[in-house]
Amino acid sequence: MSRRIEIYDTTLRDGTQAEEFNLSLEDKIRVALKLDELGIDYIEGGWPGSNPKDARFFKEIRDYQLKHARIAAFGSTHHPRKEAHLDENLKALLEAKTPVVTIFGKSWTIHVKEALKTTLERNLEIIESSVKFLRPHVEKLFYDAEHFFDGFKEDPDYAVETLRRAWGAGADCLVLCDTNGGTLPHELVEIIREVKKRLGQEISFGIHAHNDSDCAVANSLFAILEGATQVQGTMNGVGERCGNANLCSIIPNLVLKMGVECEAGKNLPRLTEVSRFIFELANLPHPRNLPYVGRSAFAHKGGVHVSAILRHPRTYEHIEPELVGNTRRVLVSDLSGRSNIVYKARQFGLELSQEDPVVGKIVEEVKKREAEGYEFEAAEASLELLMYRLLGEPKQYFELLGYRVLDMKPTKEGPLLVEATVMVRVPPGVGEVEHTAAVGNGPVNALDHAIRKALERFYPQLKEMKLEDYKVRVLPGTPGTGARVRVLITSRDGDGQWGTVGVSHDILEASCQALIESYTYKLFRDRQRKEA
Amino acid sequence: MSRRIEIYDTTLRDGTQAEEFNLSLEDKIRVALKLDELGIDYIEGGWPGSNPKDARFFKEIRDYQLKHARIAAFGSTHHPRKEAHLDENLKALLEAKTPVVTIFGKSWTIHVKEALKTTLERNLEIIESSVKFLRPHVEKLFYDAEHFFDGFKEDPDYAVETLRRAWGAGADCLVLCDTNGGTLPHELVEIIREVKKRLGQEISFGIHAHNDSDCAVANSLFAILEGATQVQGTMNGVGERCGNANLCSIIPNLVLKMGVECEAGKNLPRLTEVSRFIFELANLPHPRNLPYVGRSAFAHKGGVHVSAILRHPRTYEHIEPELVGNTRRVLVSDLSGRSNIVYKARQFGLELSQEDPVVGKIVEEVKKREAEGYEFEAAEASLELLMYRLLGEPKQYFELLGYRVLDMKPTKEGPLLVEATVMVRVPPGVGEVEHTAAVGNGPVNALDHAIRKALERFYPQLKEMKLEDYKVRVLPGTPGTGARVRVLITSRDGDGQWGTVGVSHDILEASCQALIESYTYKLFRDRQRKEA
Repeated sequence: MSRRIEIYDTTLRDGTQAEEFNLSLEDKIRVALKLDELGIDYIEGGWPGSNPKDARFFKEIRDYQLKHARIAAFGSTHHPRKEAHLDENLKALLEAKTPVVTIFGKSWTIHVKEALKTTLERNLEIIESSVKFLRPHVEKLFYDAEHFFDGFKEDPDYAVETLRRAWGAGADCLVLCDTNGGTLPHELVEIIREVKKRLGQEISFGIHAHNDSDCAVANSLFAILEGATQVQGTMNGVGERCGNANLCSIIPNLVLKMGVECEAGKNLPRLTEVSRFIFELANLPHPRNLPYVGRSAFAHKGGVHVSAILRHPRTYEHIEPELVGNTRRVLVSDLSGRSNIVYKARQFGLELSQEDPVVGKIVEEVKKREAEGYEFEAAEASLELLMYRLLGEPKQYFELLGYRVLDMKPTKEGPLLVEATVMVRVPPGVGEVEHTAAVGNGPVNALDHAIRKALERFYPQLKEMKLEDYKVRVLPGTPGTGARVRVLITSRDGDGQWGTVGVSHDILEASCQALIESYTYKLFRDRQRKEA
Repeated sequence: MSRRIEIYDTTLRDGTQAEEFNLSLEDKIRVALKLDELGIDYIEGGWPGSNPKDARFFKEIRDYQLKHARIAAFGSTHHPRKEAHLDENLKALLEAKTPVVTIFGKSWTIHVKEALKTTLERNLEIIESSVKFLRPHVEKLFYDAEHFFDGFKEDPDYAVETLRRAWGAGADCLVLCDTNGGTLPHELVEIIREVKKRLGQEISFGIHAHNDSDCAVANSLFAILEGATQVQGTMNGVGERCGNANLCSIIPNLVLKMGVECEAGKNLPRLTEVSRFIFELANLPHPRNLPYVGRSAFAHKGGVHVSAILRHPRTYEHIEPELVGNTRRVLVSDLSGRSNIVYKARQFGLELSQEDPVVGKIVEEVKKREAEGYEFEAAEASLELLMYRLLGEPKQYFELLGYRVLDMKPTKEGPLLVEATVMVRVPPGVGEVEHTAAVGNGPVNALDHAIRKALERFYPQLKEMKLEDYKVRVLPGTPGTGARVRVLITSRDGDGQWGTVGVSHDILEASCQALIESYTYKLFRDRQRKEA
């Protein structure tokens, strides 16, 4: 009989405390939907009392039908000088209307006295009354014991008493938090054993670890070995200071190595994709060396070992990369590339076999583009167009013959003048040349306006599409303003959204490429649907 | 009586297996000298048999007088079809003339059969004869038991027998290697205990862990708790796939938390500097979230929090950052209040009191800017300039009166033409107007060239600075190409680096702002230094 664990993701709350991890409201919704697809059990969406963006998230997410996940709102116990039913923070938690609420309280005497500025006895009352107040209104109520391990080291009796109060008042799970991240695994094990002994009753407990000692994953695993039924963490370990426990490491460790079950275990082959999606959305580079999901995690340097690796991967890899949706990268062989391409092609409605020579051509072209800085993971529309082009079905509906962008600020305080002129031939090669111009509030915006203006006479359906997101990443290599940039554009119409990519030393040229791919994809997909 | 551990660094050998970590011969020498200053006990310099760069390293490093460290050469047991005294690999090891040699052998039956292509018995002979051959020639001889944990799981008797042979032949320390990085800490503890029991004699052992399961640091600490006297790892955990055990985390965990002594423990305040130096030399970004040594490791957000941190740092930090040479950073963000500003001002050499009305004005201005999309966390130079401006010391050395950027691609395949013209008045208000133009490989690059061209006649020291990084983030709000963007620029000169920020709907205007702030900061700081 194997054990089952619940995974509690706090990427959208604790994760956004990281210095460079910022998500818009729309991003947060997209992340939540991805986490749901992955099979995460609980998604902590934010702290509704702390800022209006989080409150809006809870309102909007209610419009979506989640497959499995339950959304949690996070907040603190009530104010020392208030009663629970009059406390605005607790009220905001209930107004979030989530099935799950997680409330944190103080376990460390110093924090009670210095941060809360109240007495030890009052803090116990606060914990108890906060939990009791929330209990009838939510399906699941979790109690986060903030600074638990530091608190226990300072005053074990008091720390345990806070747990006893929260449990007695009806919390479903007591989550032991290593808030400052300073606890080492051997201490953690000892403390958990001692806590269980002192409590003298069966409780459900969870673990929330931070990585300040580089042991957050190990701490989480040990807590589970000691009986924890819930593990909290973030995707890619993003979080304040050194980050939270990394769920992208914890989940496969549990499922593949410890025989522990969890819902996300069923979707493990999607782990790498979800991990990369989230950093892509936040415009953060995905660290190559991330365990399980990083681009280098299964990379093997070429040479004598290559054939051995292919014959006996187990002897050089701790797990098969496919189990977590990652791929083996062997520099002298394109074998891993082929199966990927065949898999992708099938998603685009193309049945190709591994042996088909066009698959080799696609692998070559993708590799060449990636070496130039292209990236197709968030630009699947560009990949689809590339495949069709190599299959001899060049999807081209127009031709951009040339463009000129003028961006000027003639006086110091004066307004900007931004103008783009474009020459477009429709259809390509033989058609009319449309020469037109438009202004914009920036150079890319002006280009977008001018190209659309030239095309909409021929393709009025372009009016249905809008550009939803526009991202720029500076590529490693030449430093400074001479560097190459990658532009990713997300577009949308009534039927869905798609991503395209462009790369150049010139940000406007890169943007132009991605824009053209985006219009082309819209026209291509519309025609394909009409034909179907 | 506290225990003493030896630290064995393999940054120069196993570390350089990382995909993006490359060091020249000169770099390797500089890294070795830094590691020696830090108090590392053994520095593995390379594999003399495998490449000429490593062989040259061993020759050159002999010219230096190291303070404490001993250099180790790394190599494999002799070839199955050779005898020890005729093996070129073993000969190359001795030719390196290092006081220490580390030799690795096979512990895993599959690897003996598949990689070495020999019999289990012959492998035992090879281990024994290789160790015996080297023994008289070196001060210290270490035996790395490759794939030890996987080998033990497959065939514990055989794995233990390989250890017994190496020990019997005279190795000073048996290093248990988790080469594939797949072992979890609870398994590792169990295996080490079992090995000790089976060996039935006192041996010295070490640990060499990889991070594929995100547990390399925990594994190393547990091995030490089980009696290991040597720990191998790399600086910042750099290494193949997911990297090696991170010595920058292991050393402070041992010294500050486990009461274990090591030579590097005496120089702990230099740890952050050495960690950053090595990545700087390899031209790799230093990950912000690295435990102990990362730029975010002691970064705090949020106003209420900050005043408490300043009063009681221990309650929000697992250790004092100064112990490892890192610094506390108070992030100025829209959550921040007066105490953050006072703290930052002190870093900029300004003594302000919490009650000073200018502090309120600064807080207001920062909040207003942040609402517009500015971000000062990575742009401290812009924050410093903002503070001086509000204190009535407007630091302005020139005035950009206007600019015009033309970016055109006149034909479909033809080259880009990118030209910027600028009008700059130096000094502002009264000085000469310089009207000039420049080209670039993109519009921002052309602007950068043109403004520098206009200014360098007046301020030749601008030639000393270069732009090190350029980042663009699209701000949430209006979607698509009309969105506002934030540009962050990192600049550097011989004295250090600084960050500046610009925000606009127009990416070129935002870049222009950040560039101007960057030049201004350079001129301001140079003058301040001259006056000091």
